[in-house]
Amino acid sequence: MSGSRLERQLAFLVEADKLKRVLRQNLVGDGSRRENVAEHSWHLTLAALVLAEHCAEGAVDLGRVMRMVVLHDLVEIDAGDTYLYDARGRVTKQVRERQAAERLFGLLPGDQAEPLSALWEEFEARETAEARYAGAVDRLLPMLLNYLAEGRVWKVNGITRAQIVEHCEHMKDGAPELWKFAQSMLDDAVAKGFLPADCER
Amino acid sequence: MSGSRLERQLAFLVEADKLKRVLRQNLVGDGSRRENVAEHSWHLTLAALVLAEHCAEGAVDLGRVMRMVVLHDLVEIDAGDTYLYDARGRVTKQVRERQAAERLFGLLPGDQAEPLSALWEEFEARETAEARYAGAVDRLLPMLLNYLAEGRVWKVNGITRAQIVEHCEHMKDGAPELWKFAQSMLDDAVAKGFLPADCER
Repeated sequence: MSGSRLERQLAFLVEADKLKRVLRQNLVGDGSRRENVAEHSWHLTLAALVLAEHCAEGAVDLGRVMRMVVLHDLVEIDAGDTYLYDARGRVTKQVRERQAAERLFGLLPGDQAEPLSALWEEFEARETAEARYAGAVDRLLPMLLNYLAEGRVWKVNGITRAQIVEHCEHMKDGAPELWKFAQSMLDDAVAKGFLPADCER
Repeated sequence: MSGSRLERQLAFLVEADKLKRVLRQNLVGDGSRRENVAEHSWHLTLAALVLAEHCAEGAVDLGRVMRMVVLHDLVEIDAGDTYLYDARGRVTKQVRERQAAERLFGLLPGDQAEPLSALWEEFEARETAEARYAGAVDRLLPMLLNYLAEGRVWKVNGITRAQIVEHCEHMKDGAPELWKFAQSMLDDAVAKGFLPADCER
C-alpha cells in the first residue's frame, strides 16, 4: 500500500463491492432475475445523464447529480433494500440507513467522508433541484422495468396504481415531463392488466 | 409517450439494461459468481469519484470522467466482453465494438448520440488526461478483485504477472500512484502463490 489515504479509499471500494449482493424487488429488463442494487445504481447514473434535459428547472449540475446517484443506495449494504411499498420497513429505514452511512462513508479519509455523506443526505432530503431530479429518475426506472415485466412484481406484492402514484408523485417536482410519461405508462399498465387501479384492490 | 425524444432516450435505456446480462471474467469480491458489466461499470464510476486525487495531472474534469466510465462498456451488449488477455478476441475487438457503438448510441436523438459516442471514443483512445485516468482505474479494479479472490481467475486462465504488467502498465500515465500500488499488490500476489511470475509460466 502506498499510504493510508489510498488504503482507506480502497477499503471503502472493497466494502462497496458488497452492493452487488443486495437484491431489489424488481426484475432486470428480461424478467429473468431480480436486479441487484449495484447494477440499478449504474442504470440510474446512465439514465440521469441521458434524461437530464427533462429536469424541472431546465438545468441541473449534472456532475453533482451523477455523484449523488452513484452512491445513493450504498447504505443498503448494511440496511438492506427497503421496498417502496413496505410500510413497516419504512418506519425504521431512516435510522438504519443513517447508521449505515456513518459506518460506510466513515471508511474513507475524513475530508471525503463528509462531502460524500452530505451528497447522500441531499439525495434523501430532496430539497435541491439536483436531488429532486435524481429522485424522479430513481422512481421512473423501476416503474419502466416493472412495466416491461408485465407487472409481475406489482402483482406479487399486491401493488395498485394509486399506491404507486402516492409514492412517486414527487417526480413532478424533479422532472415533470417524466412524471407525465410515467402516468401514461401506468394508465397503459392498468389497461393491459399489469396493475390494478385502486378500486380493484 | 410524450414525444419522440423521450421515446428514443427510453428505448436506449431499455437496451442498455442488457448490460446486466453480459458477464466478465473476474468474480465479484466474495468470489461467489462472475461480475456482470453493469455492476462493474457502477463500481468503476464510484472508484473514479473516490480516487480522483490520484490522477496523473493533479486534476481531471471529474464530471467528464464519470460520464465516460458510466458508458465505457456499453458496446459489450453487442460485442461481448473481450478478456484483456484474449489475444485472438482482441484482433477483432475494435471492429465489433465500433459497430456496436454505432447501433447503440444511434438509438438516442442525434444531438446526444454524437457527444456520447465521442466520449466512448475518447476513453478508448486514451489520449486525454480524463481517458488516461479512467483507463487506469478500469485496470485497477479487476486486479483488486482478482487479488481478493486469491487469483482464481488468473490461475484458470494461466495469466502471469508479466502479462498483467504488459496490459496494465499504461496505468502509470493516468494514475502513477495507483500503478505503484498495483505493482506492490502483484508482487504480493506472486509471493502468496495467487499468480505466477513470468519465468514460472
